[in-house]
This record gives sequence, C-alpha cells and structure tokens, in this order.
Amino acid sequence: MIADRRDLHAHAEPGWCEVYAATKVYDALTTMGWEIRAGAAVIDADARLGLPPQSDFDFFFARAIENGAEADLAKTFRDGFTGLVAVWKGRRSGPVVAFRFDLDANRGAESERADHVPVARRFVSMNHGVHHNCGHDGHTSLGLALARSIAALDGNFAGEIRLIFQPAEEGLRGARAMVTAGVLGGVDYFVGCHIGIQATRTGEVVSGYTTILGSDKLDVHFHGVGAHAAIAPHEGRNALLAACVAAQNLMAIPRHGKGDTRINIGTLVGGNARNTVPAEATMTIELRAEDADSLAYINEAARRVIEGAAIMHGVELTMEVAGGSGPASSDPELDAVVAAVAAQVSQVTHVVSQTPFKGSEDAAEMMRAVQEQGGKAVYFGIGSDLAAGHHNAAFDFDEASLAIGLDILCGVAATLTAGPIA
Amino acid sequence: MIADRRDLHAHAEPGWCEVYAATKVYDALTTMGWEIRAGAAVIDADARLGLPPQSDFDFFFARAIENGAEADLAKTFRDGFTGLVAVWKGRRSGPVVAFRFDLDANRGAESERADHVPVARRFVSMNHGVHHNCGHDGHTSLGLALARSIAALDGNFAGEIRLIFQPAEEGLRGARAMVTAGVLGGVDYFVGCHIGIQATRTGEVVSGYTTILGSDKLDVHFHGVGAHAAIAPHEGRNALLAACVAAQNLMAIPRHGKGDTRINIGTLVGGNARNTVPAEATMTIELRAEDADSLAYINEAARRVIEGAAIMHGVELTMEVAGGSGPASSDPELDAVVAAVAAQVSQVTHVVSQTPFKGSEDAAEMMRAVQEQGGKAVYFGIGSDLAAGHHNAAFDFDEASLAIGLDILCGVAATLTAGPIA
Amino acid sequence: MIADRRDLHAHAEPGWCEVYAATKVYDALTTMGWEIRAGAAVIDADARLGLPPQSDFDFFFARAIENGAEADLAKTFRDGFTGLVAVWKGRRSGPVVAFRFDLDANRGAESERADHVPVARRFVSMNHGVHHNCGHDGHTSLGLALARSIAALDGNFAGEIRLIFQPAEEGLRGARAMVTAGVLGGVDYFVGCHIGIQATRTGEVVSGYTTILGSDKLDVHFHGVGAHAAIAPHEGRNALLAACVAAQNLMAIPRHGKGDTRINIGTLVGGNARNTVPAEATMTIELRAEDADSLAYINEAARRVIEGAAIMHGVELTMEVAGGSGPASSDPELDAVVAAVAAQVSQVTHVVSQTPFKGSEDAAEMMRAVQEQGGKAVYFGIGSDLAAGHHNAAFDFDEASLAIGLDILCGVAATLTAGPIA
Amino acid sequence: MIADRRDLHAHAEPGWCEVYAATKVYDALTTMGWEIRAGAAVIDADARLGLPPQSDFDFFFARAIENGAEADLAKTFRDGFTGLVAVWKGRRSGPVVAFRFDLDANRGAESERADHVPVARRFVSMNHGVHHNCGHDGHTSLGLALARSIAALDGNFAGEIRLIFQPAEEGLRGARAMVTAGVLGGVDYFVGCHIGIQATRTGEVVSGYTTILGSDKLDVHFHGVGAHAAIAPHEGRNALLAACVAAQNLMAIPRHGKGDTRINIGTLVGGNARNTVPAEATMTIELRAEDADSLAYINEAARRVIEGAAIMHGVELTMEVAGGSGPASSDPELDAVVAAVAAQVSQVTHVVSQTPFKGSEDAAEMMRAVQEQGGKAVYFGIGSDLAAGHHNAAFDFDEASLAIGLDILCGVAATLTAGPIA
Repeated sequence: MIADRRDLHAHAEPGWCEVYAATKVYDALTTMGWEIRAGAAVIDADARLGLPPQSDFDFFFARAIENGAEADLAKTFRDGFTGLVAVWKGRRSGPVVAFRFDLDANRGAESERADHVPVARRFVSMNHGVHHNCGHDGHTSLGLALARSIAALDGNFAGEIRLIFQPAEEGLRGARAMVTAGVLGGVDYFVGCHIGIQATRTGEVVSGYTTILGSDKLDVHFHGVGAHAAIAPHEGRNALLAACVAAQNLMAIPRHGKGDTRINIGTLVGGNARNTVPAEATMTIELRAEDADSLAYINEAARRVIEGAAIMHGVELTMEVAGGSGPASSDPELDAVVAAVAAQVSQVTHVVSQTPFKGSEDAAEMMRAVQEQGGKAVYFGIGSDLAAGHHNAAFDFDEASLAIGLDILCGVAATLTAGPIA
Repeated sequence: MIADRRDLHAHAEPGWCEVYAATKVYDALTTMGWEIRAGAAVIDADARLGLPPQSDFDFFFARAIENGAEADLAKTFRDGFTGLVAVWKGRRSGPVVAFRFDLDANRGAESERADHVPVARRFVSMNHGVHHNCGHDGHTSLGLALARSIAALDGNFAGEIRLIFQPAEEGLRGARAMVTAGVLGGVDYFVGCHIGIQATRTGEVVSGYTTILGSDKLDVHFHGVGAHAAIAPHEGRNALLAACVAAQNLMAIPRHGKGDTRINIGTLVGGNARNTVPAEATMTIELRAEDADSLAYINEAARRVIEGAAIMHGVELTMEVAGGSGPASSDPELDAVVAAVAAQVSQVTHVVSQTPFKGSEDAAEMMRAVQEQGGKAVYFGIGSDLAAGHHNAAFDFDEASLAIGLDILCGVAATLTAGPIA
Repeated sequence: MIADRRDLHAHAEPGWCEVYAATKVYDALTTMGWEIRAGAAVIDADARLGLPPQSDFDFFFARAIENGAEADLAKTFRDGFTGLVAVWKGRRSGPVVAFRFDLDANRGAESERADHVPVARRFVSMNHGVHHNCGHDGHTSLGLALARSIAALDGNFAGEIRLIFQPAEEGLRGARAMVTAGVLGGVDYFVGCHIGIQATRTGEVVSGYTTILGSDKLDVHFHGVGAHAAIAPHEGRNALLAACVAAQNLMAIPRHGKGDTRINIGTLVGGNARNTVPAEATMTIELRAEDADSLAYINEAARRVIEGAAIMHGVELTMEVAGGSGPASSDPELDAVVAAVAAQVSQVTHVVSQTPFKGSEDAAEMMRAVQEQGGKAVYFGIGSDLAAGHHNAAFDFDEASLAIGLDILCGVAATLTAGPIA
Repeated sequence: MIADRRDLHAHAEPGWCEVYAATKVYDALTTMGWEIRAGAAVIDADARLGLPPQSDFDFFFARAIENGAEADLAKTFRDGFTGLVAVWKGRRSGPVVAFRFDLDANRGAESERADHVPVARRFVSMNHGVHHNCGHDGHTSLGLALARSIAALDGNFAGEIRLIFQPAEEGLRGARAMVTAGVLGGVDYFVGCHIGIQATRTGEVVSGYTTILGSDKLDVHFHGVGAHAAIAPHEGRNALLAACVAAQNLMAIPRHGKGDTRINIGTLVGGNARNTVPAEATMTIELRAEDADSLAYINEAARRVIEGAAIMHGVELTMEVAGGSGPASSDPELDAVVAAVAAQVSQVTHVVSQTPFKGSEDAAEMMRAVQEQGGKAVYFGIGSDLAAGHHNAAFDFDEASLAIGLDILCGVAATLTAGPIA
C-alpha cells in the first residue's frame, strides 16, 4: 500500500488528467479478477465540470505513456475520461455496497525541503507544479488494497461490491459525471473516506461526517466594449464595473432563514490598460449551503445578481459551472457501523461520530444520489499525523494511517455484506 | 399689468390646476377679439407629464369657481387641460410668430413677513401652500399686455401672431403635451422669456439663452416582497436594496465624451419597519444633458441601470416620466433681434447675448420643435431686482421690470411681423 | 385578571410612557403589602434606549391623570421612568427568584371591526393609535395576579420573590436600563413569559425558549451639503449616496462562520427635492445574532461600514442606539421546572421544551445578566388561541390562557422557593 | 535628422531608462558647444513618478554600454536620471526660450511585418518589447537638429535658448521631476511639439493645442486578511470587496459643474483562490480634468472614496502616484507665432489654431509652470502621414514631416529671440 501510494505521489496528475493513475488501477484490478468498466462508459461527457484545456490533456497523456502506461489502455481515459468502476458479485444475494476513491492531485508546487518526507524518501512529484497535497494518493492506494482483500474472498460474501475510482474531486468536478452515467444504480450502501480531515492525529477516526456543504462553483465572464477613457467614455461598456457591482451584490444576498449559506468571490480580474474602459472582466465564484433548499436559493439569487449586473452596464455575459456538489450528511446507521468497526481496530485510539465537515467534498454528490434512491451513505475520516495542512506545499500524511484505514474499510465491507444492519 | 400680476399672484395655482388663470386669460383675450382654442384642443391628454391626483384637480377647480371663474368655461380646463392658444392673423402675409407664457405657481409656503411685498400690498397667495415664487404671474400678465397691444393693431401687420399660454412649466410637465397637440404647426419664429434668470437687476437683459439643458424626470418604484428580517429573510425581495443599487449605479453612469451630463437622485424613500425586509422603495430622478445625443445616452444608460437593479434583486419595477424637455439654445439671429430691440428701450442698462442658461426650462421643448421644423427660436431674460432667489419663500420681483419686458416683446413682435430678418 | 387586562388594554400606552399602567401596578401592589421601588430608583436614566419625544411623555402623563392616576405618584414615572420592582422576602432563607412582566403597548391602529373582541366587549384602546397588540396587557395582569397569590402566602416560603415590571420591551429599549440600575442584583432564578409565541393554541406550553437572538437597533443619520444638481453638483455632499452605499455594504457583511447573523435596513429616507443634491438621509438598522461573539462581530463590521460610507462621500454622521438586547437561551434546568409544573396544570394539553425563539425579546437582556452572575433563567410560552398574529391590528388572545399562565407561574414560584432544584 | 531618428528608434528605451538616448544627445550637444547640465542636476529624485524596478535600470544601462554608450557618461543617467538641459546664451539680452523634447519609447511589441518601414529599412527596435510607437524618436532628432541650427548662429541672437530633453513622458512621469529641479527657472517662452496628434497628414499643422487634460494616475493596493471562505469568513478582511466598492464609488463621483472630468479604473486584480477570502487587490486609476479646480476636486473626492472603502471593509491601504501632469492650454499669442511661422513653410498645406488636445501630455506640467511664473507656452502639432495610430504596434510616421517640424522650430526660435512679440 505504501509502495502504491508513493508511486502515485511521484506521478501526481491534476483532475481529468489522471491517465497514469487510472491505467495503474485498471491493470491492478484486472489482474485481481475484477470486472471493470472504464472511461466514457462510466463518465457522462456532458456532465463533466471544470475541464482543463486540451494542452493539459495532451501533456499528461504523453507523460503517462512516458512513465509506462500502456498506450491502448491509456486511450480509454484520454481527454477527460479518467474514471473506472470495478464490480465483484458475491455468491450469495445481498446489498450493493459501493466504495469510492478519488484519483486527482492539485496544482501547486511541492515543498523541496530536505525534511519533506517525499523528498527524503525520493517520491516527490515528477510532474512539476502538480502535488498530491490532499492525500488522494493514499485514498487510491487504499482502494487498491481493499480490492485485493475483496478479491481474496473469491466471492464468498452476500451482495455486490462496487469500487468507484473518480477523477477531479478537487473543485467538485468529477462526481456528477459518474452519477449521471449511472454508476450508482442499485447501490444500497455508499462508503467514502478522507485522510486527516478534522482528525489530525494517527489513531483518531471520524465515523461519519455531517453537513458536508453543497457547493456550486461559477466562472463568470463579462464582455464589454473598450473605449478611450478620456475621449469617448460613453462609447465603452464597462465590464469591470459590471463585475464590481456583481461582486458587491453577491455578497449582499440575504441570509437564508433556515440553512447556513456561504458566498465568495475568490478572484476578480478586469481591464488591461489604465486609460481604456475595461472591455473584459472575469470572476470566480463559490456558493455553498448546508441543505438543498438554501443552495437552490443562493444559486437563483446569484444568477439574478449576475444577470442584473450585465444588463445594468450593457455588457454580455458568459457563465459556466466550474464545479458542483450537493450537500449531504452521513446516515447515522452507517456512521454506527463505521464506529463499531473502528472500535475494534487496534491502533484506533479515539472515535467520534456525526462531526460537521464544514467544507465541501465531491463524494457528497454521490451520497445524495444514493440517499435519494433509498440507500444509505457514510463518509468517514481516517486520522493521520499531518506535516502541514491540506493544500499546503509541505502537506504529507503519516503512512501508518493507511493500515488503519484499510482495516476499517475491510471491516465495513464485511459487516455490510454479511447481512442486514440495524 | 401690475393689477393682473397681483390678481394672478393672489390666486396661485400649481401645474395642471391653473383653472382661475386660464379662465382669466380666456375672458380677457376673448374680449380683445382674439381667436382662441383652449383645453383639450391644445393639450394632448396622453402627453401630459406629472399629473397631480384627482383631488388636486377638484380642489383648485372649486377654488376657481369660488373666486369668480365662470363655471362652464372653467370646465374646458378642468382635470388637467389648462392651456390655451390665441391667434390673430395680420392683413398682410408674413411669418407665423409664437409667443409663449407659463401659468403655473409652485408648491411651497409663501413668506408671511411684513416686508414681503405681497404681504405689504395684500396680494399674498390665498391658496395656502402654493406660491408664485418663479415669476410666472409676471409672465402671464406680460402675455395679456402683449395681447392688448397686438389687438390694438387691428391686424395691421404681416403674418400671424400666436399666443401660447402653457400649464405646468415647473417640473417640465406641460410643454410636450402642447407640442404634440400641434400648437406650433407652421411657426417660423418662437419667442419665450423669463424674469430674473442670470439677470438679477432691473434694466439688465439677456437677449438669448444658450444651452438650456435637456432633462428627463423619472419616478421609479420598486415593488418587492416583505418578510420577517430575522425569521425568513430569504422570503423577502428587497426593494430598498434594489433602489440603493440603482442610485449608486446611476451616479456611476460614465461621462459622455462630448456633451455635459447631470444625474441626480433627488429623493429615495423605502421600507416601513425596522424588522421587515423592505417591500417598497421609490426614487425621484433627474437626468440632464446639454445636447440631444448625450441626453439620449444618459436616458438609455439610466434605464438599463434601473432595469438591471430590479432584475438583480428580483423585484418588480414601475417607472413613469414625471417631466421632460429637450435641450435647446436660442438662435443667434433672433437673439440679435431681441438685443437690437432691447437696446432701444429706455430703462434698459445692459444687454448680454448668448448666455448659458445652466438649468432646464420647459420652453426648450417648444424651441426644439420649432427649430426642427426649420423655424428659429429665442428665449430671453428680463432683468429684475429680486427680493430672494427663485423658488424661495421670499421670492418677489420688481414690478418695474414688467414694463421693460412688454416694450421688448412689442418691439420683437413689430420687427418679426414687419418683414424678413437677416 | 381579565378585568385588569381589559383595563390595561383600554389604556394602552407606548414604551417609556406607561404612566397609567405603572401607577395601577404600584397602587395594587402597595395595597397587597409589597415593598416597592419605582421610577428613577430602578431605571438608569443614561441606559434608556429609544426614548420618545418630550411631547409623548407629556401627552401620556396627562392622559394617565385624566384617567384617574394619582398625580403625585404618577410623577414618579414621568418622563421615561415607568418601571417598578416589588419585593417580598420569605420567612425562611432561600434563593432570590425574579419574575419579569412588560408594560408597554405598540404604536398602530387597533381594529374597529365588530368581531374584534375588544370592540365587542368595549375595552378597545382609548388612546388612538396605540394598541396592546402583543399581549403585554395580559402579561401585566398575570404579574398582578401572581403578586396576589404570593402576598397570600404571607411570607411562608424560602428566599425572596422579586417582581419586575419593565417599560419599553418593544424595540428592546427598556430592560438594559433596569439591569444597569441593579434590579437583578442577587437574583438566582429569573422567570419571564410570553403569550402566544410559537404556541398559538390555548393549552400548549413552551417550557423554555432557546436562542433568543441578540439584537442591536441603530438609527443612522448622514448629514451632507445640498447643492443645485445641475449648476453645482460638485458643491454638494451627497448624504443619500452615503446611505445607499452603507445599506448595500451592510447587507454584504460576511456571514460569521459560527453564529447565525441577520442584518436589515428597515427604512431609508433621503433627499427632499428632485433637483437638489440630497443633504440628509436616515436609516433604521437592525442587527441580530445568535451569540455574543457573532453579535459583537456584526456590530463592529456595521460600524466600520457606516463610518466608511460617511468618509467616502464626505458627509457627517450621527448614530444612536435605538434598542438592544443580548442573546440568551433558557437554562435546561429551569425549563424542566416549568415543564414539570405545566404538566400538572389541568388545561395544559401539550408541553414542548427547548424551542428556538427565532426573534428577539428584551427579557433576554435580563436573562444574560442573571446567567452571567451565576444564576439561571427561563423564558416560557403560554399558548393561546390568537385572533391574528402579534403586531396585527386584529391581534387578540384567548383570555382563558391567563388562568393557565397564572397556574404555571404560581407553581414555578412554589417549586423555586421550596428548596434547591436539581 | 532621419539617421538620428532611426538610430534612436533601433535603440528604443522605456521611461527612466533612456541611457542610450541621453548619452547620444549629450555627446552631440557637447560637440556643438552647448553648455549642459545632466542627470541628478536636472532631475529631482523625489519627484520622479512611476519608476520601473531596479532590474530595468540595470538591463537598459547594460544595453546602452553594449551599444556604444561611453560608460562614465552613462553613469550620469543611471538609475532613473535620464534628463538633460542644454543652454546657449545669445550675445544680446532678450527672453529665455525653452524648447522641450521627450526621449522615451513604450512597452509593446513592434510590428514585424515586411511592410512596416522600420522592418523594411532595418531600424526596427533591437530592444524586444520596447517600441517608439509615439514618435518621440522623431522629437529627439528634431531637438538635435534644432541644436545644430542654433549652434550655427554662434550666439547671434537675443536672449537665451534652453533645450530640455525629458525622460518618461509616457504615463506623465518625468516632467514634474524636471520642473521641481528648477529647469524652467526664468523661462519666458516655452515651446513643445508632437508629431501626428489630430494632424494626421503631412503638411498639416496645429499651431496650438488647448485643454490638454490634467491627469493623476494612482495605483491603489488594498491589503486584507485571507480566510477560509466557508469555515471562517468572519476572520477575513476582504480586500477585493473594498476594491469593488472603491471602483463603483469612484465612477460615482459627481460631475464638476464647471470643468469636465474623467475617471477610469483601468485594471483591477484581486484574490487568488476561489475558496479564500481575498487578501489582496490592486487597482490602476486615472483621473483627468480640464482645469486645476476640477482636477483638485476629483483628486480629493477619489482619495475620500478610496480611504472610505478601506475603512469600510477593515483593510489596509497603500497608494502611490504613478504619474501626473497639470492641465494646460497654449497661449494664443504663441499659438499665433507658430501659425505665422508655419504659414511660411513651403510644405505646410493647412494650419489650424487653438485645437482641443482631448488627451493628456506631460509637457503640460511644464507649460503650467512657465505660465504660473508669468511666461507663455505653446504646444503645437506637426502633421504626419501615419502608418497606424499612436501606441499601435504598426505605428510609424512620415519622416518627411521632420523637415517641416524643424523649419517651424527654427522659425519660432528666430521670432522669439529677435525681439518682443505682440
């Protein structure tokens, strides 16, 4: 598991470009005997969010081939189809249990300090500017290890186990395309996990996160008309001013009386010369809410504000959804299963349940889908000593936590495929 | 002329309610032998701007009757039709020359101090809260006196003389309705005048004002949805916030590179309880510009802003034009005629020509109409010692200036009906 | 109790003007044998919020005298000192238990419909435009009835019972002045109640409200400089624009990550003529938050916004606190006492505990004070069939709920003065 | 003159880095016999605006040495002191006449098309990304040619001739530092010129520009505090929001009633991640006005807005003046001199006087200084067929216009040093 994790870390790939990781998983699971669907079969092309430019697809495809990915297989994942689903049906009838793991790394430089473990142990990212600084390398290696354990059962369990490896968790960009492709059809129990979130010591376990905030990420572009700001200001259409008005009024969207909401304009860039009416302006926006009603409310209000700002200043508007995931909470029943299993794991020192997640997580999109079809879902946390916080250049987790995570995953799988739970 | 002016002052009536004044003018001119069209014949009902409530129509109609207006005649002017046009055709062919006078007083208390001449001489306004504080009482009495002089000619002149008495100059509300009713059809020369504007000493004359600013007055109402601001802020639609956004963005409409512009949100009133999301908000707006292009520009920009603000905050919008008049400047040729005539008037001490008006004036709407049909227009100023500025409670002008004004008007009439001018 | 309530209803008085009510309570309690402190002895003059104009003080003082209040006593309460505190010490040592009742009615017309019970039963408000539309007439009559019951014990209880009658609950204006005057010194248990809040059927009881939102009410005045909007816009200082900017940016104060917050600009009025740069603008603002940290946060942020807006547009600023009360929640231990007592009252059909209040209530200021000195507090609800919602012209409650309320109050008093509670 | 111009074009240098040009001018004028002051002697270090980073100083210093500038002399101009003043005193007493030329090129790629004359004739800029796209290469070569003509007079004229070569005209960054260094002391007549502004055909002459707009260029940086936008929005201080509020309210600064004004926020960049409260935001602002009063007005108003926005959102503010020049107009008397001279130049086809400049120009800072000390100033235009507009990559002027310009400059010099003008 540690070897897998280090290999993935060294070949870090950003969202929708995880060709190396996907081929590695595919090869490993095929060897184990899993039945696999991959690429466009499990990714709805039109539901993919926040795709990178073609040059990124090309670059990371070529890098994967260079680093040993088999070319024909790699083509399955090329151009933004880097997901796969593996299925193993038990000999006895029983529930469908899905486990989900994410494949992507982040943009961002990795620490080059000698005391950064990937430097010291020589598995630092070879793809400069891309860094597994959120632990997804660990998640994928957990998925591979779980796959091995399940395979070893040779079908001696009740129901079906489905392993989902998703691309582009960062930015909430990948889950929706797998959901709309139907990969959760028939799932009764959904299990996801994350290393080190609100459990930052090895041995701690969060047996179920609640109120994972739903979120929509919008990219907004205002297109105006430039003009000489002294000679003909009236001939301009000020895209920057439209963006400034939109930003202020987005922040002024009233609180929802029932569900907590968040709005952020993370970046705004407009204009290109001091003496010219700005013809272009771009904003990146993030909306979050703790439930579906308040997320819908804030989304509608935000779109009104943005459209109103464009009309107000006579500029054109293009808007795209760069990411999005619904809100979700772990079902207490599955949380209890994780807690019970974790309590039996020897290295586990502390288990807390029903813990607010506070941020957003693409797994929630899958949790909602399962819950809406009557299933139950849990997202749990594997505590780990961290070298630095998530998304930091010096992020690194304690590899000892992987063994704990695997024990829990195997225990949960065993519990859920043994018979009905309370 | 002084007696007429004092009678009109004592019976001050606000715009569209000048029933006493109109019947007085009608009676006088009929007696002199003028051919008269009055009321709906010279007022396009649909083009009237800024009408008062019916209760005002009723109140001032009743007051006029009480004060001696003949009831059947008064009905001609009832409910906002208080204009009239008198025509006298000369025996010789020649140009059509129009003289325009305004009838209305302003809302506003009149000074009750003993040294206020209307108090001392006992012609203070009997209609409490309505005050001839802009000198239109003088203008109307000048019109009556000019009518007498023309009548005395018994048609011994070339062309046609047309006297236009318009309602509701204040707020730029009345001229447009007379223009669209066609009262300026065929007019070759248009002459208007004002007492005491940028000529505040008796004996001064401005022989022609330039750049009378065009203006549009808008009343904007945002209609939202109230809600308890603590329990259900998301159920509200904040009309006040829409108005605040509109106000800021109206002020931010870019300068026009060619023509000077002005924007003012004169009043804004919104909301009705501290703990309720405001459901209603109202703004009174004034747009001005020195030429037609920049007035059109600012008007379009303002409407975009207002509509955008409504969309932005999800509120309904009603908007009405409460007043409006195009920009205009006196033609230099007619300015020269006024200057030449004025130079011959014994009490005149000082004549300046081509003087920027700086404000707006409803006569400009008529000037533009005449200029657009190929005629020429002038708007001149009759200097007068003022007790206080226009629209002030203590405003009063020097009645000696009336004789000067009449001499100029008669001289201009004589010049323009004697033959072609250079 | 019903007679008292109807008498108070008929003599409805607004906040800080409750001279009739205060003298009535004083007279009654004196007769019963209570030891009373009144007026400036229990009201810190400088801590009074949202005082009405002197003319209101004078008017309602005169009305109280006309309606039978004894003049010398009435002077105790004159000019905004309409509170009183009655004390009865038990023969045995024990805790200090305070019960608080509010005296004031609201501004607002009362329904004149024949089916409005106060009309039908002839106790409609004789003070036109002032209406007991929030049930405080009932609260005060409950206080009088409780006083009678306690008096009947003739000191046969442990500890001290303190009855607090406060002015100006509406707008959160009166409690703070009594707290800073020290009326809660030594209080171990604080008990308040309200008729009909989230318990709108007679027989229901809320045994303890939680998260009563803290609130600050600010009145903000921007003072600029008027100017002719066409001739000299640069000479103005636009107070209305400052207010609009403030309003928008107040709404844009970021959410607090921990405590729920609310902001409302309830009213905004600015400017006085369409063609003049607005010299004055006034806003009424309400801030609310569910805990002290987030209330402090929103208060500081609001003041920065308001000051920044004044600086931005070069206008002067005056600001006053028109009301304010801290956030509070009922202590579960006292909630349990109320619940246990209520369960024994025969007409009670349904008891719920720990119910979010959602709005604000001036009693919370007293609850916080008691809790900060180590005591415990409860605010409970007496269900009542309502003719219309609180603050509605047709509001009326079911007088049968008064007997229920009294039984609970007496039971709670008995419990708390019998010995220590769990 | 053409050889000089092409050499300067090939060695284009940006503002404050014109070491090659300054040493070339110094060498040439020394050879001719002019008395020269250079570098820090004529540049007030503290009044320099919009200095580039040290790396630019170093780079262009090294380039100048590489291209033949003498190292010791070049050091005189190093690190932003690239100005010089040459003086020749006539043998007879008379007025001090200053001629000013600018040395700098612009940032921006130069056209590489074969039909771009500098490409065809092989004098394209060797400093990649720096381009003489505003004709200052021509201005400097005119200055050198004028110097030769004056030198040839060997002092046979009345008064003193002073040649001013200034750095950093672009962005209005260099003139002020020379003015405050005193280079205009005693100047009676100031003469400046530009190629191709509103005279875009060879043979046209504008004998005097009016209303060169005064301008101030501000760079504003807001420094806030970042925070996780979902978990702790209240811990952030939103620099981007402050910038948006500032931008909107800068645009809303009221028109000045007398002088035309312009405001532009040319660029705004803020924030660095979608999910983080933006900690930094930067704006580049340009203010312009047609007279000193309105420029002062708009400057004060802008600073209030910017400071108010910082206070409003609790962020720190740093602001620097990146450029600035006062408004000015050519004196009609000197305009007439230029017109009279130009009318005698054989290739001149058309002369217009008193033409609004509409934009800004750093020479105006010197014109104002001379006018304030009682002297007279003119800024005239040398018409030229242009390949493309100023600041365009394909900009090039007709070198034939240089001879015309030189004839006018020599004629003006002769006129002004021959004796008093009307």
